[in-house]
Amino acid sequence: MPILGQNQYGKAENRVVRITRDGATHHIKDLNVSVSLSGDMDEVHLSGSNANVLPTDTTKNTVYAFAKEHGIESAEQFGIHLARHFVTSQPAIHRARIRIEEYSWERIEHSGKGAHSFVRTGQETRLAQITYDGSAWEVVSGLKDLTLMNSTDSEFWGYVKDKYTTLPEAHDRILATDVSGRWRFNWTDDEAPMPVWDESYAQVKQHMLQAFAETYSLSLQQTLYAMGARIIDHRSEIDEVRFSLPNKHHFLVDLAPFGLKNDNEVYFAADRPYGLIEATVLRDGVEALIPADLTNL
Amino acid sequence: MPILGQNQYGKAENRVVRITRDGATHHIKDLNVSVSLSGDMDEVHLSGSNANVLPTDTTKNTVYAFAKEHGIESAEQFGIHLARHFVTSQPAIHRARIRIEEYSWERIEHSGKGAHSFVRTGQETRLAQITYDGSAWEVVSGLKDLTLMNSTDSEFWGYVKDKYTTLPEAHDRILATDVSGRWRFNWTDDEAPMPVWDESYAQVKQHMLQAFAETYSLSLQQTLYAMGARIIDHRSEIDEVRFSLPNKHHFLVDLAPFGLKNDNEVYFAADRPYGLIEATVLRDGVEALIPADLTNL
Amino acid sequence: MPILGQNQYGKAENRVVRITRDGATHHIKDLNVSVSLSGDMDEVHLSGSNANVLPTDTTKNTVYAFAKEHGIESAEQFGIHLARHFVTSQPAIHRARIRIEEYSWERIEHSGKGAHSFVRTGQETRLAQITYDGSAWEVVSGLKDLTLMNSTDSEFWGYVKDKYTTLPEAHDRILATDVSGRWRFNWTDDEAPMPVWDESYAQVKQHMLQAFAETYSLSLQQTLYAMGARIIDHRSEIDEVRFSLPNKHHFLVDLAPFGLKNDNEVYFAADRPYGLIEATVLRDGVEALIPADLTNL
Amino acid sequence: MPILGQNQYGKAENRVVRITRDGATHHIKDLNVSVSLSGDMDEVHLSGSNANVLPTDTTKNTVYAFAKEHGIESAEQFGIHLARHFVTSQPAIHRARIRIEEYSWERIEHSGKGAHSFVRTGQETRLAQITYDGSAWEVVSGLKDLTLMNSTDSEFWGYVKDKYTTLPEAHDRILATDVSGRWRFNWTDDEAPMPVWDESYAQVKQHMLQAFAETYSLSLQQTLYAMGARIIDHRSEIDEVRFSLPNKHHFLVDLAPFGLKNDNEVYFAADRPYGLIEATVLRDGVEALIPADLTNL
Repeated sequence: MPILGQNQYGKAENRVVRITRDGATHHIKDLNVSVSLSGDMDEVHLSGSNANVLPTDTTKNTVYAFAKEHGIESAEQFGIHLARHFVTSQPAIHRARIRIEEYSWERIEHSGKGAHSFVRTGQETRLAQITYDGSAWEVVSGLKDLTLMNSTDSEFWGYVKDKYTTLPEAHDRILATDVSGRWRFNWTDDEAPMPVWDESYAQVKQHMLQAFAETYSLSLQQTLYAMGARIIDHRSEIDEVRFSLPNKHHFLVDLAPFGLKNDNEVYFAADRPYGLIEATVLRDGVEALIPADLTNL
Repeated sequence: MPILGQNQYGKAENRVVRITRDGATHHIKDLNVSVSLSGDMDEVHLSGSNANVLPTDTTKNTVYAFAKEHGIESAEQFGIHLARHFVTSQPAIHRARIRIEEYSWERIEHSGKGAHSFVRTGQETRLAQITYDGSAWEVVSGLKDLTLMNSTDSEFWGYVKDKYTTLPEAHDRILATDVSGRWRFNWTDDEAPMPVWDESYAQVKQHMLQAFAETYSLSLQQTLYAMGARIIDHRSEIDEVRFSLPNKHHFLVDLAPFGLKNDNEVYFAADRPYGLIEATVLRDGVEALIPADLTNL
Repeated sequence: MPILGQNQYGKAENRVVRITRDGATHHIKDLNVSVSLSGDMDEVHLSGSNANVLPTDTTKNTVYAFAKEHGIESAEQFGIHLARHFVTSQPAIHRARIRIEEYSWERIEHSGKGAHSFVRTGQETRLAQITYDGSAWEVVSGLKDLTLMNSTDSEFWGYVKDKYTTLPEAHDRILATDVSGRWRFNWTDDEAPMPVWDESYAQVKQHMLQAFAETYSLSLQQTLYAMGARIIDHRSEIDEVRFSLPNKHHFLVDLAPFGLKNDNEVYFAADRPYGLIEATVLRDGVEALIPADLTNL
Repeated sequence: MPILGQNQYGKAENRVVRITRDGATHHIKDLNVSVSLSGDMDEVHLSGSNANVLPTDTTKNTVYAFAKEHGIESAEQFGIHLARHFVTSQPAIHRARIRIEEYSWERIEHSGKGAHSFVRTGQETRLAQITYDGSAWEVVSGLKDLTLMNSTDSEFWGYVKDKYTTLPEAHDRILATDVSGRWRFNWTDDEAPMPVWDESYAQVKQHMLQAFAETYSLSLQQTLYAMGARIIDHRSEIDEVRFSLPNKHHFLVDLAPFGLKNDNEVYFAADRPYGLIEATVLRDGVEALIPADLTNL
């Protein structure tokens, strides 16, 4: 008989908005929460018995109830509350994984009364993944869709040339990417002090942006490593960083047929294909735990 | 024989990035330009003769060549250069319509050398549509995907109730929308002074945000009208505004089954269906020219 | 005071699935229904009074109730029931427009009991738009995302060449497009016999496919006209057709640098930019009523 | 110094269309090919030296050249040619992974000459992933976006109830999902006879559809296991199957407020949240190698 392997289930993409009222000043947290549970689940697959199955609908209800009971201090803290609950309250659940997307908002400045009007910033989506097996925690934070560009200080030359190579070397090119990144915290133990999640996120993002801007780049791989290394060097709470960086090609347009010189001024921003550069940067001595394929391609 | 009606053709979605170098300080314009031409085009439809057809590939080349020859001062100004060129240089082309999306970038602050590193703001997409028929101009600017929320000061009650009505009245609800807006300038004549496009855009966006924030709302229609009216009242260069505003429902979650009170704190952000409110606001005495259906639903 | 112009409101994207049981054999209709109402709506915009406003939530309820009360014989017939209801039951509503997307399913053949298992065909999305003002009907049917390709019998040459033209003439190219089409019925009067909506749709799609396949093409415009003319010629219930056809470029890859000949065998399928060809084809003597811009670019 | 961990690079989403001409009868293969290479790549990350880097542009060229040199017999066979080439021709490349999406087309029947007109079927996207390290092969095939529905013969009851459970038990519900599946072949050795890739794919899809249709379902987990087990039982070339199945909820609409009975006829098709059921089914005695998270949520 075919064997059942790794399995998990839950309710994905629970969209929860939490408003906190401090008089006429409101605060907002806007999350997309996915719950994934594993454990003693052979029977539901083999015979259809749901005796061990907490319904996915219940996991959805729990997300909303916890937004009231615990509030949402940060995505990571909220995920920790949820993961602990499922593993400790359900004997058949041995592991809970909570994945969260967070959308950020800023206040609209205006001359009316109150402070309860917001506009979405629309920049990156913040990510958090919290996994708990009843004894140890794994927290991986991240972001996606942060689009960066250096309009100079990027080169690409000295590469291997085989019979299919036609690319001319470049000594001044645009370097652009949509950052997809994940970073793993070394906090695993309830007894140890937790990282300050929001401050950590803000600092990591800053280091990422600055490493991108300050690296004179001979390859996107070099820039990627600089971004990861800077985080490892400056943030002691983080042991591992993984990036998936598309090389969003900006091709210099040949304007010579029109009698025009294109001195690195006019570019065609291409869609597909694109380079895709992926790597892990680790603190010396630690084991890599973030999976290699962050995207599905 | 079936008759040929309105027709137009061109190259859509030309992605052009223009870098301007002011020493080590770079500036960036990032556009998506679509060209649409009309004129004496019966033969290409009826017999396939391309004798009057300027290839769409040529219109693409022209976009890139003009980014060099004229630079990109603003989306509107760039579209005016293009539209004028096609209509005045090609006898068979009687009308040109240029549609532009613009993506905005901000500088990355850092302590390295130079100022040529950017991060996309990711907020709204700016829009411009320039139409020229050889004698008069029509310029419609706009934006899409600007997501707004008021977490209070919105009500909805006193509506019609028929046999299919089950909605309870609301005296304190979230009001959220993704603004899709277009506004038409009254500049039509080459001899008249042009609006200052970028400043006008910034001001219109400000008025929009402030009207949204400052209107105590009894209906999304009321908020829409307030946004449009404020633009008409404050910006003499604009005669007409059209909005398409989805009512992005945030439903208060019923936490009573869990023994919890939800005092306007925890909401479910729904996807579909959504309300859709659309209207035009006009300066008194002018004719409406922006089409009614901005979106395809 | 700024003037209120054309306005409409309603609930968009109501996803309704209707199962009809004929013993163990089930039938399925899967629609996405958007309601848009206009009428005496000044007050809701100006003062926020909802006294004339049937809530969008009620329009949603009506969609689901009508799926039970009237069934869903076809998208068009269902839209007619809805539009008639809103206009005739609400004095303040003077026009109703119903837009419908329909997704098609086919049966899964299997050796078990019953006939209630389906797989989505995934090909085009069928469209219907029904508009009623209390006296006359306008029904526009359509489809989108029908992807077609001719791998030969397409040429493009003899076009205008200006200083920005670099395109070489083509005497054997791939012609590919995603059809977005709308066609308007001449049925407007309740007293006249209605078209047989589903049969008409199937026939129109057939004519479209065959005209695409059988036209030796000197331009995409010529193919477009042939598709529209064939519908007008063969379907007396239809007076007007509008197409928006992207020219999905397939570029022959230059393999000469690798010592290979590419005899129309290997192509790069490009994303952006793309040609965009749009036109109306009409029965002689009728007025064009389908708007020119089916897409937002 | 921070350590470089797993890394890979290449050109993603090369869109290649290959036409094969058999007289006036043409055949088409339409692929999206992503190349990912790993090996001796420390230097490019640490110093930016590209001495070991075959440019991603070259990997793109190779895709197009191989479409000519080897043709595209199947996605899997094409990936095998590519992976072997990169690993055996480049000393610094120790592993190549080729990921392919395939889009299927069917002929347009018509009465004109030739057989070179096609319409995209639009149903599922076929997937293939080929990995080669110079000694052993791993081939994982799959599909995504195959949408299935059973309109009856699905129940859900007898589950765990905790304080957050409000879901009523269901004894007749719609079961619908978008199948995302991957299956791993036990072929690893060049000396062994290869599977017949296209026939295997067609058979696996058939078994999947039939298991879905023929399983009276007490839980989506049970249906998932039945789909996987049937493939393992019937296809000896496959050792492991992984599914990620969203439970696309279709909620019975409460029509009682309108005096109507909804006897499993009218459903609301919801978007988010959705259940997400994921599991591996294995041949007894083999090791699971397909990663647990096929999707990013």
